[in-house]
Amino acid sequence: MEDRIIRLTYSEKAIRLHRLYKGKISMTPKISLDTMEDLSLVYSPGVAAVSMAIAKDVNESYKLTNRANTVAVISDGSAVLGLGNIGPEAAMPVMEGKAVLFKKFAGIDAIPICLNTQDKDAIVDIITNLAPSFGGVNLEDIAAPKCFEIEERLQHIGIPVFHDDQHGTAIVVLAGLINGLNLVGKDPNAVKVVISGVGAAGIATAKLLKTYGVSDVVMVDSKGIVCKQRPDLNKVKQDILKITNSQSLQGDLADALKEADVFIGVSAPNIVTEEIIQSMGTKPIVFVLSNPDPEILPELAIKAGAAIIATGRSDYPNQINNCLVFPGIFRGALDVRCPKITVEMKIAVAHALAELVVEPSADFIIPNSFDPSVVLAVSKAITSVFNN
Amino acid sequence: MEDRIIRLTYSEKAIRLHRLYKGKISMTPKISLDTMEDLSLVYSPGVAAVSMAIAKDVNESYKLTNRANTVAVISDGSAVLGLGNIGPEAAMPVMEGKAVLFKKFAGIDAIPICLNTQDKDAIVDIITNLAPSFGGVNLEDIAAPKCFEIEERLQHIGIPVFHDDQHGTAIVVLAGLINGLNLVGKDPNAVKVVISGVGAAGIATAKLLKTYGVSDVVMVDSKGIVCKQRPDLNKVKQDILKITNSQSLQGDLADALKEADVFIGVSAPNIVTEEIIQSMGTKPIVFVLSNPDPEILPELAIKAGAAIIATGRSDYPNQINNCLVFPGIFRGALDVRCPKITVEMKIAVAHALAELVVEPSADFIIPNSFDPSVVLAVSKAITSVFNN
Repeated sequence: MEDRIIRLTYSEKAIRLHRLYKGKISMTPKISLDTMEDLSLVYSPGVAAVSMAIAKDVNESYKLTNRANTVAVISDGSAVLGLGNIGPEAAMPVMEGKAVLFKKFAGIDAIPICLNTQDKDAIVDIITNLAPSFGGVNLEDIAAPKCFEIEERLQHIGIPVFHDDQHGTAIVVLAGLINGLNLVGKDPNAVKVVISGVGAAGIATAKLLKTYGVSDVVMVDSKGIVCKQRPDLNKVKQDILKITNSQSLQGDLADALKEADVFIGVSAPNIVTEEIIQSMGTKPIVFVLSNPDPEILPELAIKAGAAIIATGRSDYPNQINNCLVFPGIFRGALDVRCPKITVEMKIAVAHALAELVVEPSADFIIPNSFDPSVVLAVSKAITSVFNN
Repeated sequence: MEDRIIRLTYSEKAIRLHRLYKGKISMTPKISLDTMEDLSLVYSPGVAAVSMAIAKDVNESYKLTNRANTVAVISDGSAVLGLGNIGPEAAMPVMEGKAVLFKKFAGIDAIPICLNTQDKDAIVDIITNLAPSFGGVNLEDIAAPKCFEIEERLQHIGIPVFHDDQHGTAIVVLAGLINGLNLVGKDPNAVKVVISGVGAAGIATAKLLKTYGVSDVVMVDSKGIVCKQRPDLNKVKQDILKITNSQSLQGDLADALKEADVFIGVSAPNIVTEEIIQSMGTKPIVFVLSNPDPEILPELAIKAGAAIIATGRSDYPNQINNCLVFPGIFRGALDVRCPKITVEMKIAVAHALAELVVEPSADFIIPNSFDPSVVLAVSKAITSVFNN
């Protein structure tokens, strides 16, 4: 019996767990309500004075309500995990999971909200109008390219809005690269990085690496290298081309990876062969983050000469996991009430993560997700940049 | 010292309590997250199977997420308590308080949401788009007359939407009247009821009493009796006139109350004199619900001959308290997934509340808010009507 239970797949176990508990989160009062006096303080008439104090000074909402510790996790269900456009109800288990992670890793009360619209303008309007209820907004699983515009337009609503699928991945990738490039003795200012996948994570990673100082980034989507000869590029791809592919490469992923120093896959399973890895430059760094099936299996990449490998999985070394980033980012942002997460903050967080690894090695370039020093280091990076 | 603390007003105590705890609610995981295996079940990759199960059958969202136990408490801050239009941030302490009540009285996880818009159409759009995240919506502290249209337009979004300021009050008033009229030996079909206040509570009470079978209801606002001679009536008042004031009365509140059997005040403090009570019919029933200062103080109403008195306060007998209604209504609605709260359900709840009082007397026509049998009786009334 024991054996049978253990051999259940993650999927089967997860379904059973969710069915048993009927979801993963609950709302809990922080104060007691046992007497008429309690009722008079928690609710009417006593609460009227609390409301009036906030009406006089809206900043008091951060001191007299739970706002200062509350983040909304908002999705429209249009790009959920690797499952695609499965809609708001089906996205909810992921958002509830994120809420559990927020509480576990950073003590933050996260409210999962899935929207019954996938219209860009409607999403922006709704989140703008929800802002007074929350201390921050974590956008989640919203399809590219609209996710970029939605996040951009929400940078001015007074509370931090952070699309984790973009920046969470980008920041952990940069952290891993800082240690990885150091290990192989290469200068970020003199490396060629190829990114496969031009969605939320790929675009954000390219931008962050360029801002950090990486000399050359080449983007590749399912149709090949993003280059000026292609007539099919949308606005986002045209924009990213302005800061990438400085050598004007054309061709497919194999063409892009010739003599490349770093491969970052945020795309699709099994699209890279051993031969392609062998065609890369010396001591190649290979981040294959397609999950659960990476662009190439780590054991094959090693055989082909990869010096350092990272994946999105917990059963290989160097897991690129957003859990390393979003809890601490919002912890820091809430603690100092910063209105947005700047690119300086993102780079500071990547440095903080990289520095947490005391003795980096090929199998240990980024900290473990459950390392309790992570959230402290990340939140401190946010608050330090904000206070300077 | 002890004495000084005790002598603090409710307002002072409430402010201190809220400042100490920084709000009243928190989000709590229902399942543990201590290991990488936990992480794989709560979040990726295990959660993908849970999302796919809901994508295949959206009904599974009621079994695999917390939706079946979750109600959104939504306000635009336009009519908060008796404080008026104080905005979304200032409304939040009331919504958090309501969330505490939902949990305490009915075990329901309530999410307080205050909107940064007071536009009718925007509110309807937002709530429609929030629906997949919740099992029900409790509208709260939204100004009349727009609250009526907003609630009406949200009756078709698939989950129950219930404006507590309207129906909570109306249902408890009806429950009190059922026992009260019985005590004074009057037939609902042959009484004249005067309602002072034509806002959310007044309108909903008038409608419910008429549906219940009260023969004559007369509405009075700050400008006098709602009658066809008045040129200033808005759409809502014109509509309520169609089912009220069957004798075509004109004049002020004193004129309306002559020979009236029941007075229901949901309006303003100290607008009724002893003389006015004396002008009512035999054994008058007087519900003076303006809070904290009623339309006439109970001790004066008794002196003037009132047979039965109810207030909104906890320091007099017969407190008309919405807490008696909304927790059980949503408990029942969530338990059977009923898509709306019908008028038959509201009347059934009023009967259930009235019947909970085993031996009604002038000082005991409705149950106590902390009576644990209340939520069970109310939710059973909802589920019984739904299942028939």
